[in-house]
Amino acid sequence: MIKVVIIGSGNVAQHLIKVMQTAVNVNLVQVFARNKESVLHLIAEDKITSDYNAIKEADVYIISVSDNAIAEVSKNLPFKNCLVVHTSGTSELSVLDAKNRKGVFYPLQTFSKSKEIDFSSIPLCLEAESETDLLLLEQLANTITQKSYRISSGQRKSLHIAAVFVCNFANHMYTIGNQICEEHNVPFEVLQPLIIETAHKITSLKPEEAQTGPALRNDTKTINKHLEFLEYSNYQELYKLLTQSIQNVKKL
Amino acid sequence: MIKVVIIGSGNVAQHLIKVMQTAVNVNLVQVFARNKESVLHLIAEDKITSDYNAIKEADVYIISVSDNAIAEVSKNLPFKNCLVVHTSGTSELSVLDAKNRKGVFYPLQTFSKSKEIDFSSIPLCLEAESETDLLLLEQLANTITQKSYRISSGQRKSLHIAAVFVCNFANHMYTIGNQICEEHNVPFEVLQPLIIETAHKITSLKPEEAQTGPALRNDTKTINKHLEFLEYSNYQELYKLLTQSIQNVKKL
Repeated sequence: MIKVVIIGSGNVAQHLIKVMQTAVNVNLVQVFARNKESVLHLIAEDKITSDYNAIKEADVYIISVSDNAIAEVSKNLPFKNCLVVHTSGTSELSVLDAKNRKGVFYPLQTFSKSKEIDFSSIPLCLEAESETDLLLLEQLANTITQKSYRISSGQRKSLHIAAVFVCNFANHMYTIGNQICEEHNVPFEVLQPLIIETAHKITSLKPEEAQTGPALRNDTKTINKHLEFLEYSNYQELYKLLTQSIQNVKKL
Repeated sequence: MIKVVIIGSGNVAQHLIKVMQTAVNVNLVQVFARNKESVLHLIAEDKITSDYNAIKEADVYIISVSDNAIAEVSKNLPFKNCLVVHTSGTSELSVLDAKNRKGVFYPLQTFSKSKEIDFSSIPLCLEAESETDLLLLEQLANTITQKSYRISSGQRKSLHIAAVFVCNFANHMYTIGNQICEEHNVPFEVLQPLIIETAHKITSLKPEEAQTGPALRNDTKTINKHLEFLEYSNYQELYKLLTQSIQNVKKL
């Protein structure tokens, strides 16, 4: 049984609280939340504390708070030599206070409070200072997902930037598509199967191989028609730069 | 039984040949291909012709050729007053020769020859000059998909531009993510669940509501770190413009 304390009550923390309670061989001993109310719907009140000195003993302490708060929270912990991990994609291992054994337990996924998520397909990126701690984190990860990876702080940094492109920026492409549809009275659902298929394609083809469209074909007639169409929108510049960027990749 | 002749042998034509042969209540009478070899693996030789004058009688003639060739092919047809449709997202109805009844039968999906596709979830965008012809196209569409939409030439134009954003440009985001991973020795598969979830999110949330990330949060510390990371890559400018664009949408 791996004893776990989760520190935090945000989006990721809430998803972790849910999944850790159902995980086999995990005992979610306690949740630390400054505001108890925020997690009362997820866990029994006697398992919630807002007092650092009341934090119970555990094998792993998971700090799941905003990036700016990780250092301070880890400093406030009243114990030492324990395994303390954060869940951030952007923060380095070193932001954690040195009095404890440091680690990272980063679930690479886009979490919305309003949307349930199947944790078993979420990759967990793990880091620790010793092989023993890494093995413990792997054991913990394997109770909730089939996919865990050893990822260094340096790798995680590049992974997070890649994630901004494939998630945040891809979603912005959907936003633009939706806006164009709304402006021209076309139901956005017409585009949904295309969006899903485009995403699924990259599980069997390399993204470069899956690329299609006027930019790749250098179909200047269509490109110019599109640029004309976008003349008074906010997106003409973006269309140009993305087209150019696709053509640069092609040349490599 | 709706009698169909398909004219063309490209990517979309090949997918249509396959699905029309298995569709109930459709009789794929013939395929016109300049080069018979290109479709011999899909249909019996005696059903293929490369002679315009040998084209058989049908209820619907589907021209599925490159945009530049539609006008000429439709002019070459030796009959008149028949229903002739094209399958293009970019060409207007009017590119078809006026001697026949014009229509559009546009499957909105990204087709790769190397990847099988389930046609039943592909939206078909239909257009015709008369209600009778539209009904016939709807009847034909319904034999192969559950989703057909009446989309005018004007709507289709905007839809195609929206499709470039949600498909071609989104895929380019995947390419960039993959490049960053490869350069830093991180397996791209770590990002695949994120890509799939990001795409699926928009079937239950509006893309604006699904947006997450440093740009939306105006997390300048992270944004600057990322820009620094991208300093010697081709993607710094793109990162800036996309971040700005997400923040513009937020302000609306």
